[in-house]
Amino acid sequence: MRDVADRAGVSLGTASNVLNHPERVSAAAIERVRMAIDELGFVRNANASTLASGRSGALGLVVINLSNSMFVDVARGAQAAARAAGHNLLLADSADDFGAQGDNVDSFNEARVAGLLLAPMQDSSEHVARLKARQTPVVLINYDQGDDNLCTVVVDNEQVGYLAVRHMLDIGCRRIVFAAGGDEYYQPVRLRRRGARRAMREAAGAASFEEIMADGVKEADGLTVARQIAGRGPDTRPDGIIGVSDSLASGLVEGLSEAGITVPDEIAVMGCDRNSSAGDCRVPLTSIAMKGQEMGAAAVRLLLDEMNRDGDHVHQRVVLTPELIVRGSTVLP
Amino acid sequence: MRDVADRAGVSLGTASNVLNHPERVSAAAIERVRMAIDELGFVRNANASTLASGRSGALGLVVINLSNSMFVDVARGAQAAARAAGHNLLLADSADDFGAQGDNVDSFNEARVAGLLLAPMQDSSEHVARLKARQTPVVLINYDQGDDNLCTVVVDNEQVGYLAVRHMLDIGCRRIVFAAGGDEYYQPVRLRRRGARRAMREAAGAASFEEIMADGVKEADGLTVARQIAGRGPDTRPDGIIGVSDSLASGLVEGLSEAGITVPDEIAVMGCDRNSSAGDCRVPLTSIAMKGQEMGAAAVRLLLDEMNRDGDHVHQRVVLTPELIVRGSTVLP
Repeated sequence: MRDVADRAGVSLGTASNVLNHPERVSAAAIERVRMAIDELGFVRNANASTLASGRSGALGLVVINLSNSMFVDVARGAQAAARAAGHNLLLADSADDFGAQGDNVDSFNEARVAGLLLAPMQDSSEHVARLKARQTPVVLINYDQGDDNLCTVVVDNEQVGYLAVRHMLDIGCRRIVFAAGGDEYYQPVRLRRRGARRAMREAAGAASFEEIMADGVKEADGLTVARQIAGRGPDTRPDGIIGVSDSLASGLVEGLSEAGITVPDEIAVMGCDRNSSAGDCRVPLTSIAMKGQEMGAAAVRLLLDEMNRDGDHVHQRVVLTPELIVRGSTVLP
Repeated sequence: MRDVADRAGVSLGTASNVLNHPERVSAAAIERVRMAIDELGFVRNANASTLASGRSGALGLVVINLSNSMFVDVARGAQAAARAAGHNLLLADSADDFGAQGDNVDSFNEARVAGLLLAPMQDSSEHVARLKARQTPVVLINYDQGDDNLCTVVVDNEQVGYLAVRHMLDIGCRRIVFAAGGDEYYQPVRLRRRGARRAMREAAGAASFEEIMADGVKEADGLTVARQIAGRGPDTRPDGIIGVSDSLASGLVEGLSEAGITVPDEIAVMGCDRNSSAGDCRVPLTSIAMKGQEMGAAAVRLLLDEMNRDGDHVHQRVVLTPELIVRGSTVLP
């Protein structure tokens, strides 16, 4: 910083103000300091105190799949919270590849980030161990691996399934289908299924409940389920279908429409993970908000607490409440 | 690496094979080496040769707004190309904030990335200079600032506007509106407008052409334009409207539908930047593919060439051709 001030021909205080309080200095001083910075290749560190530890001031976020807009929301929330605290956020996308997730974790370890947020889709104890080995604080997002030695932020996915069935009952559905696949891979699918069953048990006979096993959670899987349902006689079709993901629900709407079955008039359809990248849907899809931004923000707060309070930090499991969003695929305007 | 081998009680060759050719070693050896790595907090570097230069093997990508799915596509394409070449990709989102873009550039400079991809929305010479000051190779994506001292990858946005008008003419529209705002901020808007005008000039009288100035490129701006058009008598309304962005076009469809005007029967509507996060649209939107993945992949190839060939590298401007995607908002199924 002294080098910059000397080169710019200003005081150390002025140089510092250019970076931290530009409103206090003249435009000419800003320009001189900027030029000096460029000439020297000086790199500002948002959090000088962390430099002492040999770490950068940046936080890292590794998400399993950035094509799922929920993780873009997580990044947005995390970034706003990080910047508010004077830290920058760097991201890495694992593109559904667990090996890539490991490489991303290693890259951030190597970059000496001050802390890491990890949003996986499966148990990642192995990657967490690599971070712990370098004393890098880590917070898990959207996956609970039952580890009490770190902080975890999730949405209550059991409540997601519960809210979905409750909504279908509330709008008068009497033959409800829950369409889902991938239980063996996806923690949210297992939990949403459990919540849906609980809501049906509580409703005790108010409606019939059928679970259709799809091959996965993608649009193509929803298309397949829709065609199976369209192949039934009208009397044996459901009047409400819950797709465990918005992608699957989009496929359901598409498949039913192709077969001439109108949504929501003949069959109401909803998804479970409000997702702006679920593909195009012919009708606005009722779904459940997964609180991505809130998860990202909460995770940053926990990470900063662990970074800054060190020995005093108490690991927490934060469970956020999902929220029903009613739209045209279940309720006529 | 010697430390890892010693701790694991295996030869240096075996330890190296575990990292680079795991198929050549026994499961037991892999496990021993993995444990040693975890215990030592060893971080693998994907590209050891770059370590000699003090740089990490990671590439960085700074995008102006990750909520725009085109930039997620860019990240996807860049990541696949980077990984295929043995490099990991780290991202940063500037959330439409030029200051945040500067911080992101600094963070990557500080993390000593091997090279940086920068996808801005305005002239970023100031940030490029900071990278050059540290000899960090940089490639611009989706913005051409006319700088011959670096590589640039863009889609031909003039062709985007041209293709849009051509499509409206091809489906028989005779009163075409081009709705756009933000010319002063957005290079793509200026270029698309220019291309649209060129197509209309070439069509010489085949249709009338009206340009409506919107306040910006968002859904709300499209809603405003739609209401203005709905307020006209049916005879003076257009039969085709091009929204300069998919977000704006979604607002157009919404506003026309609210006014009881059907799309595409009474008025065909299209967007110009095929975007899965443009918000929900009542009908699948005809649009133009912006080739995000291809831009990301091409930019990584140029960056690697600059990193690896050093003096022999020749800066290039790569212009990709956009592609019309016809869907239900302009053509009945």
